[in-house]
Amino acid sequence: MKFPLATRYSDYDTKGHVNNAFYLTYFEIAKHLLWREVWKRHPDPPFVVAEATVRFLSPAMIGDPLEVDISTREIRTRSWIWQFRITDARDGRVIAEGSTVQVYYDYDTRQAVPIPDDVRVLLESVKA
Amino acid sequence: MKFPLATRYSDYDTKGHVNNAFYLTYFEIAKHLLWREVWKRHPDPPFVVAEATVRFLSPAMIGDPLEVDISTREIRTRSWIWQFRITDARDGRVIAEGSTVQVYYDYDTRQAVPIPDDVRVLLESVKA
Amino acid sequence: MKFPLATRYSDYDTKGHVNNAFYLTYFEIAKHLLWREVWKRHPDPPFVVAEATVRFLSPAMIGDPLEVDISTREIRTRSWIWQFRITDARDGRVIAEGSTVQVYYDYDTRQAVPIPDDVRVLLESVKA
Amino acid sequence: MKFPLATRYSDYDTKGHVNNAFYLTYFEIAKHLLWREVWKRHPDPPFVVAEATVRFLSPAMIGDPLEVDISTREIRTRSWIWQFRITDARDGRVIAEGSTVQVYYDYDTRQAVPIPDDVRVLLESVKA
Repeated sequence: MKFPLATRYSDYDTKGHVNNAFYLTYFEIAKHLLWREVWKRHPDPPFVVAEATVRFLSPAMIGDPLEVDISTREIRTRSWIWQFRITDARDGRVIAEGSTVQVYYDYDTRQAVPIPDDVRVLLESVKA
Repeated sequence: MKFPLATRYSDYDTKGHVNNAFYLTYFEIAKHLLWREVWKRHPDPPFVVAEATVRFLSPAMIGDPLEVDISTREIRTRSWIWQFRITDARDGRVIAEGSTVQVYYDYDTRQAVPIPDDVRVLLESVKA
Repeated sequence: MKFPLATRYSDYDTKGHVNNAFYLTYFEIAKHLLWREVWKRHPDPPFVVAEATVRFLSPAMIGDPLEVDISTREIRTRSWIWQFRITDARDGRVIAEGSTVQVYYDYDTRQAVPIPDDVRVLLESVKA
Repeated sequence: MKFPLATRYSDYDTKGHVNNAFYLTYFEIAKHLLWREVWKRHPDPPFVVAEATVRFLSPAMIGDPLEVDISTREIRTRSWIWQFRITDARDGRVIAEGSTVQVYYDYDTRQAVPIPDDVRVLLESVKA
């Protein structure tokens, strides 16, 4: 599922392009838009990130309109992998790609728990 | 002029509300949307901030949809004041208010310069 | 009380200097160092920010070593004013000045409460 | 080489621990401290990040004193891999591990260039 990315002036660094650390924030924006706006779930989602990988393919300069695509790559018992592609909205130029592993988490008992069935259905619905 | 505010999960702090420091970023988002999207000017604008004031009136909790309103309060020779109001988009509850002083700046000669006439007209067009 | 400021590469913007929004973060760093490191209080302090003002006097370029000075300007029943000065550690050049109003806050009852006597003594100890 | 990490209150999210996206910033802090403070090179370093991986092993709660260790894993013609380990300074508990690939970059010609010999010697000096 693809979303326009609202970049901020403070995302850009002295070289005029988006600082590398903000790509994990961009991935997180996509997760939250999907979780909250599309799936209408609680805005503070019950999962933690266990692993993240980003490949920076082309710089995003100030003024470049960006989009982020999020899809599910794999679903396990307690965790799943989302993959991301950030592109220039004008021509599809790939800016960055990556993936993150999420663990479904119960903040009361402070432990990983199996993904509930209704969430599993949602994750399946955006499978790559 | 009013814009919806794309908040990020990383804007919220341990108390569950937007961290105070991000309100200056929210003001900056409004400036850049006005300058770039509405006025179609260069995305890296030629002004510096000389002063900023924020009053935090009500916390913005995660999930609250926010809007930011920007308008010109005063125009001088080399500088102008923009004022801001951030509200809850559902009921108009005021989250924060504030203002910033901008100085028109020539990055080649590294000095403040008079506001050009075409920019002055734009600033007048959003006068409070 | 003066602290060295650990700036980050991501604080600097396309103009090569610290982005204006980060000065509120710098003020917050000083508050937390004072509260936690010097006063040995709980790292998640029980106050909210009600108002903030910053004057940007000189740009902080990448590589400039910065210091932040925090002192108490005024103490009221439920709130107090801290003032800040950020300087270049090499020559004392003033980068920014400002102040913030804090309200002592009870997160259980969700309301402002009077400043406890022991905190009042601490606030007095760094009076300007 | 190990450095203490100056975390900021705004790094922590609604769950009370460091937001995942800030770990790339922590890696960047280590790179810049090594490059600028230890190696005394220009504060705006001539390399870009091509790839980054983070594994989040244990949450960093507010108040936990953190350290970051940076070392060189591999050196190629135009690029090298740095690896990172973030630990709790009190007991060595591992918070996060990861690596980033840097490409030596000439910002004038806008292309990757071979790593200069003097930089290669520095990179060797912190080999894992």
